[in-house]
Amino acid sequence: MKLIRFSLPGHTEIHGGILEGTTVRPYAGDLFGDRSLTGESYPLDQVQLHAPLTPSNIIGIGKNFVAEGQAKPPVPDMPILFMKPLSTVVGPNAPIVLPPGIDEIKFESELAVVIGRTASRIRPEQAEEFIFGYTVANDVAALQYFHPEGHWTIGKSFDSFCPLGPAIETSFEYEAARIQATVNGRTMQNSSMDRIIMPIDRMIAYISSFTTLQPGDVILTGTPAGADLVRDGDTVVCTIDGIGSLSNPVQAVR
Amino acid sequence: MKLIRFSLPGHTEIHGGILEGTTVRPYAGDLFGDRSLTGESYPLDQVQLHAPLTPSNIIGIGKNFVAEGQAKPPVPDMPILFMKPLSTVVGPNAPIVLPPGIDEIKFESELAVVIGRTASRIRPEQAEEFIFGYTVANDVAALQYFHPEGHWTIGKSFDSFCPLGPAIETSFEYEAARIQATVNGRTMQNSSMDRIIMPIDRMIAYISSFTTLQPGDVILTGTPAGADLVRDGDTVVCTIDGIGSLSNPVQAVR
Repeated sequence: MKLIRFSLPGHTEIHGGILEGTTVRPYAGDLFGDRSLTGESYPLDQVQLHAPLTPSNIIGIGKNFVAEGQAKPPVPDMPILFMKPLSTVVGPNAPIVLPPGIDEIKFESELAVVIGRTASRIRPEQAEEFIFGYTVANDVAALQYFHPEGHWTIGKSFDSFCPLGPAIETSFEYEAARIQATVNGRTMQNSSMDRIIMPIDRMIAYISSFTTLQPGDVILTGTPAGADLVRDGDTVVCTIDGIGSLSNPVQAVR
Repeated sequence: MKLIRFSLPGHTEIHGGILEGTTVRPYAGDLFGDRSLTGESYPLDQVQLHAPLTPSNIIGIGKNFVAEGQAKPPVPDMPILFMKPLSTVVGPNAPIVLPPGIDEIKFESELAVVIGRTASRIRPEQAEEFIFGYTVANDVAALQYFHPEGHWTIGKSFDSFCPLGPAIETSFEYEAARIQATVNGRTMQNSSMDRIIMPIDRMIAYISSFTTLQPGDVILTGTPAGADLVRDGDTVVCTIDGIGSLSNPVQAVR
């Protein structure tokens, strides 16, 4: 099932909906609770999509993929983790805004896990029970703001630096999926998700060993080879087969 | 005005209240919106205090104080910033839980700023308009989980590693205040807040230059000299004159 959030032309209110093909069926209720269809429906091309949820925490992992054809290193004892503030979240087609004075930022196409149940100190084999679904993320960074002492926080945290969408897919097997990114139509990333180093079940178990995960927490699972710099006027499309495509233009502040 | 959150003996519901001396006056309404006193009142020693708010984002700054008597370095062009997930928050008297297998963690007594209005790209001289109030924080860290490449995220993010309280003081001038910490009654930190390197107005302006701050965002403003390690059975009390004292025992997982 594909869960989206959308608004109607001329209205600001954001609704939850189920996407079936190109038909949007609004529901009443809570994303993580009871949902009941209202009976209305809209063509997808007549609604505006928003990020499919408002996360509580956003936690990302760094350096978690190897290129195709390369040997996988061992899973690290301590992964590189970082967080992004909530103001980074935008939806499909919303601009990724270049920080003032910066010409280039880095895009990273990523599979994002949406947590559906409170998870503390779980084992990898339990992880699936706590996953609500999966969406596509673009984990954008301004490398100029990575601190010389190693902290990525500022560079990862500019407004609009976490496009999410188009939908949360609740039935998805990631291991065989392909993850891609294009810039202005040119393929920049194209990898099997099996090139991941710390697999998602172990990642969720690891994170739950120090922080109690809550419904709405989003985990960005790392990006494959090929992430690169983009500039004003470029359009980045991140795609994961079975979930969808997330397109965002890059814009300088006008 | 001192704003707290509390529960009554035998009840789990958390209420908002105003603390006047040792009297708690509950209010109805929203911390950042309209509040009206219910007319009830309770003695402070008959309620259980909780963290005075549920933050949206928690953003901290590192290395932001000099010891008394030392020359202040220039304000850095790029401060060290980090984030803590929401599961780090606990209230007064709640245990700070040692991670399994760890004997020692570091406490840091800090002044925490609570943002009250949406703030984007503001100037330092505007910062005061966006501050809702101030509380005391203990920015706890497990140094064993600071990543060798410089990332502090995991070490700062264990459950219970952000005690907050006892109250949000809405009328407070920090520059002349003293900030202290004791461990088992022994003074470990005792500094004027004027030993801060990046002052709070510049810090808020800086953070608002990359992320749109929201009501409920909490900024941890750094800790003075003397922060040290604590172990199972220790009790840390962080105090800022004019706000109050935040006491938390350190406990190993039983």
